[in-house]
Amino acid sequence: MKKHHLRIPGPTEVPDSVMRAMQTPMLNHRGEEFISIFKQVSEEIKEVFQTQNDVLIFPSAGTGAMEAAIVNLFSPGDLILSFPNGVFSERFAQIAESFGANVERIQVEWGKPVTPDTVRERLTRDTNHEIKGILFTHNETSTGVLNDIKALREAVGNHPAVILVDAISSLGAVDLKTDEWNLDAVVTGSQKALMLPPGLGFISLSAKAWTMVEQSRMPKYYWDFRAAKKSLEKGQTPYTPAVSLIFALKESLELMKKEGLPNIFKRHLMISGALRAGIKAIGMKLFVDDRWASPTVTSIEISGCETQNFSKLLKNRFNITVAGGQEKLKNKIMRIGHLGYVDKMDIINVLAGLEMALGDRNLYGKGVREAELFFEKGEMGQ
Amino acid sequence: MKKHHLRIPGPTEVPDSVMRAMQTPMLNHRGEEFISIFKQVSEEIKEVFQTQNDVLIFPSAGTGAMEAAIVNLFSPGDLILSFPNGVFSERFAQIAESFGANVERIQVEWGKPVTPDTVRERLTRDTNHEIKGILFTHNETSTGVLNDIKALREAVGNHPAVILVDAISSLGAVDLKTDEWNLDAVVTGSQKALMLPPGLGFISLSAKAWTMVEQSRMPKYYWDFRAAKKSLEKGQTPYTPAVSLIFALKESLELMKKEGLPNIFKRHLMISGALRAGIKAIGMKLFVDDRWASPTVTSIEISGCETQNFSKLLKNRFNITVAGGQEKLKNKIMRIGHLGYVDKMDIINVLAGLEMALGDRNLYGKGVREAELFFEKGEMGQ
Repeated sequence: MKKHHLRIPGPTEVPDSVMRAMQTPMLNHRGEEFISIFKQVSEEIKEVFQTQNDVLIFPSAGTGAMEAAIVNLFSPGDLILSFPNGVFSERFAQIAESFGANVERIQVEWGKPVTPDTVRERLTRDTNHEIKGILFTHNETSTGVLNDIKALREAVGNHPAVILVDAISSLGAVDLKTDEWNLDAVVTGSQKALMLPPGLGFISLSAKAWTMVEQSRMPKYYWDFRAAKKSLEKGQTPYTPAVSLIFALKESLELMKKEGLPNIFKRHLMISGALRAGIKAIGMKLFVDDRWASPTVTSIEISGCETQNFSKLLKNRFNITVAGGQEKLKNKIMRIGHLGYVDKMDIINVLAGLEMALGDRNLYGKGVREAELFFEKGEMGQ
Repeated sequence: MKKHHLRIPGPTEVPDSVMRAMQTPMLNHRGEEFISIFKQVSEEIKEVFQTQNDVLIFPSAGTGAMEAAIVNLFSPGDLILSFPNGVFSERFAQIAESFGANVERIQVEWGKPVTPDTVRERLTRDTNHEIKGILFTHNETSTGVLNDIKALREAVGNHPAVILVDAISSLGAVDLKTDEWNLDAVVTGSQKALMLPPGLGFISLSAKAWTMVEQSRMPKYYWDFRAAKKSLEKGQTPYTPAVSLIFALKESLELMKKEGLPNIFKRHLMISGALRAGIKAIGMKLFVDDRWASPTVTSIEISGCETQNFSKLLKNRFNITVAGGQEKLKNKIMRIGHLGYVDKMDIINVLAGLEMALGDRNLYGKGVREAELFFEKGEMGQ
């Protein structure tokens, strides 16, 4: 008997009812029944994005949705600012470069967030407004750093550049006020906080972003936002949508609505806080400072081959799957994903697994105890 | 009680066991279990493509896979030949144009196939080998015409242009010998003969195609074949794969292997032949000549608002969903899809539905009778 605990930062566990929704028989994607479902999910996903604007949905991985945002907003030669502090913020920059953008990288230490001052300093020097776009990564999945998008947005101030936010591993788990904070393009994927299997990419676009779309000269066809918007007005997509995942999305949005976004955000803060408290209590070293720790993924420093051995031990003895470090963090950190369909008891399990994997009996129960105390404190509203 | 008969040319009905395979719990897409499954399906899909070469799999609609083939093989300015005879062959040309290719269209009447002579005539004039690529559409889904790829390939002869084949609504239903016929890039999608929900795009590539990939200067990131090939060598994908659909693919490949490709091809010829015989027997007019009729989709001429009324009648009275005409064939034809998970009795049902929808009692049973005779003849090997 193997009960599996998937604690990677995506794909995440999928609730039973969402799995069952995927079983809906195929139908005509141009027929009334599907159109009605697609209209409904396209409307309801806006609430998760906290936007009044259209959200476009593509059959793709999250990276495809990032590419879609780039090729629809920019033209070759456009100056785009990037602040890489991990694998995914660097990827966003690389995509823009692949399509001929002039990407200026301001490097940030991996494990640290982008600071508003860094942004402000660069933009102040851009007196001629040569910078056309700014790439931000809300939650840097490769390190477990949450960038403070609200503060970064404020640092941009009235500079006319469009602001693109990769919110793939945060949207629907961490507060991100797309409209209130004036974010022009926000991108996410299905296999994270939306509790769906991978295969859907989502992009919201502000009115300003749409004016950029009209001027964009990067080549595109599959990702063309104008075609997608024209189809969306009829409750359709330009090309065949991933029908089963749209059925699943309908159900997951239902679940999210029932819990309520504020409660979902609180739950993620609660479980990540408890996990961090527990990890500290058993003497393991967190890679990221509390001040900018991600509510969806937690990195623990374990160097050398220890990282792999520890992960294998968690997998073989307790059926807990965690992720390793990527690129320059390979064999340096272990990452625990806790987003989407995850609750307090999942965190208790992880901590018990870590305690037993460490093997020091003096520590048994100590991490779990801290987590319990953290939960209690949270519930009492302190 | 509504038993639904989905007779559109995709998405097609999905067998129960494939649906159930989609229910497999999420797992680490970088872990051993998934790698082993991905290696297996990547190997087995080659048999359906009738190729020894790698087949790349992307989370995308079929159109995405078409775009992937274009942007990885060509450079802006490349001269590409296209023979549009319907919506999808025209789309292939448009994608190439969107990325800066110099597309030369040789128009072919919709409802007619591309002839080898047309191809030969143009290539003979290309003495300096300026043409870099040729776009073919195996099965033109919008009309129900099957282009004779073998004959077209022979017409290309030793001309060095790479040959791209959109086999989205044919691969796995109609014989297509990728290697034997020397086809350089063959593209398909999941929601047709592979009996899967939409969301996966597939591309096979010849050695010659790979040399084009190395030289290609069209911009790309998500679709980058070099990245996909590098990942495939490790049994992985560059970005998160559509895990649930990969599980489903494993099952559908199992089903296809059990039936055997030659039997699958025969089944499609049998059901399309029977359908056509039945349609003729009840006096309806086939849009496409028998000589180039598609084994996967059959078009019937019904002009004006009759088309829509007839489709609605089939849907409302018999739960049979058919497709209409597209673009200049809108309100001129009705299309019946019969590919993938479809058998003789499905065709009997369609014919009974057509008979009752026509409402002429003298015709009742006549179409079905012809289909029965056709099946019998086929079984007796005549």
